[in-house]
Amino acid sequence: MIMTGELSWLDKPAPIPEQSARTAAIARQKQLIKPQGALGRLENIAIDFAGFQGRENPQLDNLSVRVFGADHGIAARGTSRFPQAVTSVMLKLFCEGGAAINVLSREQNADFAAINLGCVVPVEHPDLIDEVIAPSTADFSRGNPAMTQTQLALALNAGRRQSTDADCFIGGDMGIGNTTSAAAIFAALFELEVAEITGRGTGIDDAVLARKVELIESALEQHQAALRSPLTILQTLGGFEIAALTGAFIASAQRGVPVLVDGFMATAAAAIAGAINPSVKPWLLYAHLSDEAGHQLALECMGVKPLLSFNMRLGEGTGAVLAISIIKQALNLHNKMFTFSEAGVPVAD
Amino acid sequence: MIMTGELSWLDKPAPIPEQSARTAAIARQKQLIKPQGALGRLENIAIDFAGFQGRENPQLDNLSVRVFGADHGIAARGTSRFPQAVTSVMLKLFCEGGAAINVLSREQNADFAAINLGCVVPVEHPDLIDEVIAPSTADFSRGNPAMTQTQLALALNAGRRQSTDADCFIGGDMGIGNTTSAAAIFAALFELEVAEITGRGTGIDDAVLARKVELIESALEQHQAALRSPLTILQTLGGFEIAALTGAFIASAQRGVPVLVDGFMATAAAAIAGAINPSVKPWLLYAHLSDEAGHQLALECMGVKPLLSFNMRLGEGTGAVLAISIIKQALNLHNKMFTFSEAGVPVAD
Repeated sequence: MIMTGELSWLDKPAPIPEQSARTAAIARQKQLIKPQGALGRLENIAIDFAGFQGRENPQLDNLSVRVFGADHGIAARGTSRFPQAVTSVMLKLFCEGGAAINVLSREQNADFAAINLGCVVPVEHPDLIDEVIAPSTADFSRGNPAMTQTQLALALNAGRRQSTDADCFIGGDMGIGNTTSAAAIFAALFELEVAEITGRGTGIDDAVLARKVELIESALEQHQAALRSPLTILQTLGGFEIAALTGAFIASAQRGVPVLVDGFMATAAAAIAGAINPSVKPWLLYAHLSDEAGHQLALECMGVKPLLSFNMRLGEGTGAVLAISIIKQALNLHNKMFTFSEAGVPVAD
Repeated sequence: MIMTGELSWLDKPAPIPEQSARTAAIARQKQLIKPQGALGRLENIAIDFAGFQGRENPQLDNLSVRVFGADHGIAARGTSRFPQAVTSVMLKLFCEGGAAINVLSREQNADFAAINLGCVVPVEHPDLIDEVIAPSTADFSRGNPAMTQTQLALALNAGRRQSTDADCFIGGDMGIGNTTSAAAIFAALFELEVAEITGRGTGIDDAVLARKVELIESALEQHQAALRSPLTILQTLGGFEIAALTGAFIASAQRGVPVLVDGFMATAAAAIAGAINPSVKPWLLYAHLSDEAGHQLALECMGVKPLLSFNMRLGEGTGAVLAISIIKQALNLHNKMFTFSEAGVPVAD
């Protein structure tokens, strides 16, 4: 039995990024030999990481990447182009090293793991972390919430267990049907028109897209009374992997580890995380604008601006790991460029 | 004496990227274990490089970075926040390894060099490549063209000599006053309103910006008769470093080396290069959207879309070297992801 108390950690405040280190980093940027502000957002990244790490010269040496996989009851309604069996196939592939996220993670020397929260087709691999809750969530379009309270707590705690003390945490998702779940979460959380936030996922056609929108609209109506808090929205419309991401993001922020948030599903988890516990928000950076239609709107609702925009829509955490190279270069510039005095010239105004 | 014949190489056609290798790369992308198109622009990058290298699995191992520096006569009119002495200071710093472009180039193991085409304050360093033409161009706002025909040919050939057989070429710029020159080039080449294409460079205020616009408008009027071809536009309004970039870009494309074009000045050189010799256009990729106000409009006139957008406005080639990490990751994904058959699953439609 899960006790309510096991979720009390969710509300624990995250630390405030260190202002003194940020101030020192801002001063350092003014001394680097370039016109002020000429490195644009790269300067802000360095200043943010100075605050995260409490030092003027931050480093990004250790990166943790965790991909959470789970199946969705709603997938039975045919909102995806792919069968649910693909979730298991991909979880196995993450362990074998052949997926996009593996290629990108290796390049960054990331500490990588895949976590199984429950698939319709059972999957086993010695490297797959077993946090199986159920073969899938319930179909939230048929009156039941996606998860029981117990299942929600299990998923959040499974995510929490994957947080690390790395210099940055990335959480990826895998789950056939999960854009339906994420769109429903955004619609409920930000009170959006379902058609505005719902996209084509892995590439559904107009007819399936229309059905997907109707299903979400009907679900929001059925569950209206339950959608009164971020936690009940997550329980009612979420997936196990989205809840695990939420737990991992909150726990990372609480231990002072910044999170680089990936695409549509990770952003849904970040939105819920920030709504549950607003103190985590300064620790969440946004990696890229997904090609999934609603992502732009979701990011606007959250008032955040992603780093990259390459029309990617793969999930797995791929957009976030791609952006790590930009963060590393921003920190390198901050740490290694000469100052005006090192270059032997007077400081520019 | 420079003979006219010494510029005859400008018109030599660049090779056409190999269609068979592009076709093979497109087929490979369809076999990789992901929904089709899910890697967005990263897929196009890999396909482009397959065509450049004539093989299904392209690599980016060798990168050449060359920064061209020169002073501008127009700077005497006070269109920049910084004195011309900064051009020499920065050329020396490029040789000492302390500038932003050095930090980024080292990270990519690039073959790096700085080239001096002529500075008002003489500069020497054992590693600085000497291609000095004159202490600066002429002030094109006072009736004379920026360069004589001879000087133009010297600058174009100096750039040509810096082209290499690397997997990618990046050309950077350094020259106080050069956003004025680049804006004038774009205005003449694309027949734009001067106020639309002219920006704040290193950070000039409203009054200086207004003077900069007036100077360019007056220069375009004075030289109207001379601005009849891309080459005469370059001679009349350009800088030695912009002409050297133009030569380096054309020569790179002619030897089948793709160019990753940096910001405002490099884009002006690329625009001139493509107008002189349209066969080079497929070899020019655009790295980033500069914070310089006119860059967006210039890129739109050229019908090209940059990879990154970080509000950078430093020049030196920095935005382009930053984007190299994205290209490397795109090629890695293309080469190393498992295919459906390697993963033991049927190909998705």
